[in-house]
Amino acid sequence: MKIPSKFLENAVDQLGTLPGIGKRTALRLTLHLLKKNEIEVMDFTQAIIDLKNKLFSCSSCGNIADEPICSICINPNRDHHTICVVEDIRDVMAIESTSAYKGIYHVLDGLISPLDGVGPQDLNIQSLIDKIAREKITEIIFALSPTMEGDTTNFYLFKKLQPYSPYITTLSRGVAVGSELQYTDELTLGKSLLQRQVFKINN
Amino acid sequence: MKIPSKFLENAVDQLGTLPGIGKRTALRLTLHLLKKNEIEVMDFTQAIIDLKNKLFSCSSCGNIADEPICSICINPNRDHHTICVVEDIRDVMAIESTSAYKGIYHVLDGLISPLDGVGPQDLNIQSLIDKIAREKITEIIFALSPTMEGDTTNFYLFKKLQPYSPYITTLSRGVAVGSELQYTDELTLGKSLLQRQVFKINN
Repeated sequence: MKIPSKFLENAVDQLGTLPGIGKRTALRLTLHLLKKNEIEVMDFTQAIIDLKNKLFSCSSCGNIADEPICSICINPNRDHHTICVVEDIRDVMAIESTSAYKGIYHVLDGLISPLDGVGPQDLNIQSLIDKIAREKITEIIFALSPTMEGDTTNFYLFKKLQPYSPYITTLSRGVAVGSELQYTDELTLGKSLLQRQVFKINN
Repeated sequence: MKIPSKFLENAVDQLGTLPGIGKRTALRLTLHLLKKNEIEVMDFTQAIIDLKNKLFSCSSCGNIADEPICSICINPNRDHHTICVVEDIRDVMAIESTSAYKGIYHVLDGLISPLDGVGPQDLNIQSLIDKIAREKITEIIFALSPTMEGDTTNFYLFKKLQPYSPYITTLSRGVAVGSELQYTDELTLGKSLLQRQVFKINN
């Protein structure tokens, strides 16, 4: 389909860079944006600019925050001796919405995936090891997706953390194998937190 | 799902205003935007701002253009005595990509839809009537979607344009190219029988 304007085409191309948005959908979204008034468009773009300029990655756990330390890490009512290791901030949101967990988190920002060229050095792993070496942590919960990449990451972390002989648990396999953590229903996710198991290789 | 940051939530809400984008998809798109670098985010937002500030609606036909008059209306090689009336600029793009039409367009920017509160005064109709009263137009092609709203709009336009006794045509309705006859709906098949054409080789 030939787009008659370079500004329109540019916006379509930009929206088309978003995941799951093809050219036709991008065109539909662009024409919708075109119908917004100037203030609405300013609000829309400002929200995206703010996202880049005003959001912090929590210096302690890697979660997203409006301040340098996230609201979970700064909360004195949370159990700071229990760390839940997750792939993504969406997993933090998913676990938080179960209300089944009172500890803190550590967001890896990905999983080890040799096929995608993601190695341990690309993830937020060293700060987790440093934290466990430095602080008194009673339990580390591996809450990664039950996929090949999740298992690989679990295995790597287990090997790296073993010298500090921590008590490592993992989510119970109530979560369906092959599914994405963030799409699991709250009841299952809450149960699998309560029934977490001692980590064993090939669990 | 609880979003831990007001800036993140704001961006998710803004992306969620786009058609077909629910909250979970908006969150996924937002986190994707968050992974873009600063220049990419600037390019993204600038493209949307430019859309609002630099695009013109062609003063003659209502098509989108980078100049006050669109590239079709300004083109001396087009047949300026034939007007194709369409609902949306996407229809212009669709017809242009067929290379089967050499006239000019008139974009209504919607269809008459009493259920949605869209009346003739909300559409780009008066300028069409003015143009037909003012200029020598040999043919007007109604190329609106074959829906109730499309038919209502066709009927309204027909009544309004009749005083100028123009030659009005509409897109032929029939079996789609490449489709199976047995799966064509009865209404379409019936119409394609009634409006049958003299057979020509390579028609």
